[in-house]
Amino acid sequence: MTQPTTDVIAIGNAIVDVMAPCDDALIETLGLARGGMTLIDAQQATDLYAAMGPAREISGGSAANTLAGMAQLGATCAFIGQVANDQLGEVFAHDIRAGGISFATPMREGHPPTARCLIFVTPDGQRTMNTFLGASQFLPAEQLDEKAIADAQVLLLEGYLWDPEEPRRAMRRAIAAAKNAGRKVAFTLSAVFVIARHREDFLAMIEEGLIDILFANEEELAALTGLDDFDAGFETVAAKVPTVVVTRGADGAHARREGENAYVPAQPIARVVDTTGAGDLFAAGFLFGFVRGRALEDCLTLGAICAAEVISHFGARPEVDLKTLVAQVMA
Amino acid sequence: MTQPTTDVIAIGNAIVDVMAPCDDALIETLGLARGGMTLIDAQQATDLYAAMGPAREISGGSAANTLAGMAQLGATCAFIGQVANDQLGEVFAHDIRAGGISFATPMREGHPPTARCLIFVTPDGQRTMNTFLGASQFLPAEQLDEKAIADAQVLLLEGYLWDPEEPRRAMRRAIAAAKNAGRKVAFTLSAVFVIARHREDFLAMIEEGLIDILFANEEELAALTGLDDFDAGFETVAAKVPTVVVTRGADGAHARREGENAYVPAQPIARVVDTTGAGDLFAAGFLFGFVRGRALEDCLTLGAICAAEVISHFGARPEVDLKTLVAQVMA
Repeated sequence: MTQPTTDVIAIGNAIVDVMAPCDDALIETLGLARGGMTLIDAQQATDLYAAMGPAREISGGSAANTLAGMAQLGATCAFIGQVANDQLGEVFAHDIRAGGISFATPMREGHPPTARCLIFVTPDGQRTMNTFLGASQFLPAEQLDEKAIADAQVLLLEGYLWDPEEPRRAMRRAIAAAKNAGRKVAFTLSAVFVIARHREDFLAMIEEGLIDILFANEEELAALTGLDDFDAGFETVAAKVPTVVVTRGADGAHARREGENAYVPAQPIARVVDTTGAGDLFAAGFLFGFVRGRALEDCLTLGAICAAEVISHFGARPEVDLKTLVAQVMA
Repeated sequence: MTQPTTDVIAIGNAIVDVMAPCDDALIETLGLARGGMTLIDAQQATDLYAAMGPAREISGGSAANTLAGMAQLGATCAFIGQVANDQLGEVFAHDIRAGGISFATPMREGHPPTARCLIFVTPDGQRTMNTFLGASQFLPAEQLDEKAIADAQVLLLEGYLWDPEEPRRAMRRAIAAAKNAGRKVAFTLSAVFVIARHREDFLAMIEEGLIDILFANEEELAALTGLDDFDAGFETVAAKVPTVVVTRGADGAHARREGENAYVPAQPIARVVDTTGAGDLFAAGFLFGFVRGRALEDCLTLGAICAAEVISHFGARPEVDLKTLVAQVMA
């Protein structure tokens, strides 16, 4: 087993977020799943966009957001995801590369266009996401760069991308490649609807020992285990997965690694502007600590700092330099 | 002379801003005109974008920004400007219409793509703009909606768009249409480089009484008049133009309307994040007060409030509801 040359390689949706503030009444009128993530088709994307206020476009995608945070902290990262050969594809590719992340997946010609997520942000900072997956779901399993995966200490997979068939095949191959190379696999459950559709797959992967690090929030943990009691659900998963990280929003986050427990409260924040990316950036901080061999509680603290930064402004990518921020908070 | 059905109709560049924070060293390395606006071609746009950090895309364009602010304050607005039929064109058109502004200019097929402005924002909040005009400079003079212009109380023109030939022809026709209908013409000088190229045109228009309201900052005033002394320059222009508004950044703003003088200091602000759009939003507040028949000092105060909001975050479009903000500050 050779030394990894990359800290983390991730496979995820290659999405540009289209974000606009809105009032609670609009969420009602449009019949949106408040606080959730809903997959939409091209026509729904057109209709919802027409109903949306003036917006801004910021690169997103769960795993890509995590890498953006990790790269800022100093990790070497690579991303695998599918954009179309269009202007939003150029935006996504530019932003991820400009963040210092390797990104070699070729743009896809023709329809559908690059994925976008229409995000309605209510005055409480809650985000309601509506995702048109577009090109993102056509990530070709056959062209997976298995050597790049074998070269990374951790393979990070995004549950959202388990839904479409072709990327799911790619991710299964990626898991095999990582395991063959003796690497760790990190998996984020992403959303309750994903678990509703693929719970058996996820439980089987956990059972087979394919997942080394599991990220979830408390709702996702309950959906996965079928247990409403947080502690019971946590114990069930922690008995099978070497490292488990569960976030509870304003109530902080819990982790267990090889029998060791840790908890951190949420970092104080003046105002929650937009919670988009909170979980992704928590994962960024935690995973950075993990690959650097930090103590478990430090990993959680790093996660909490990164999450607090990203919810203080619009967009799921950090606005201030996280390395500087971490140095200030943890000094 | 019939009653106008629209408060303001504007002709301007239809641009999407691509904005990223950067350090002062990068401005040096790239040889950019710090604090200024430079026109770039397609190749320069590609090269500069490659050198830029992770960015966000927010609709811009000077006159369009002014309308976005005025519409939020409650004015009825219409915009004339040229986008291409591409994703950034859709973004621009969506954002302006979602802001409640009429926008009927058809998208232009084929190359060049929609205009974009690559904006490097230094830690002091100063913006360095590099504009690829793309489709924006092909606004067809022949298709100008002269009836819409005659229906608006004020025609707002952006000096930036005086540079390309076809839009300049369109603006000359628009001025004639507005004057024939007995409407007012507002003109913003936009930038020193524009004045350097078209000073004779601007002075001739002022001499002919074609400009009723002139917006400038102090550098533009000096460039137009050739007078370094602020008061002397102001007097020269105010002798010929019925309403003159000159902004001086942190030193506030001066106006004269039909012999009446007013001055306001800049509104206090916690931190200047990004000065992009400061002048545009000052014009928004002032012009809103103007079309509503407010006292001259109130017009300036409205301008100062709107400018302070837009420099407190990234992007040249307001993030908070300006009507609410104005009600709070002017209560």
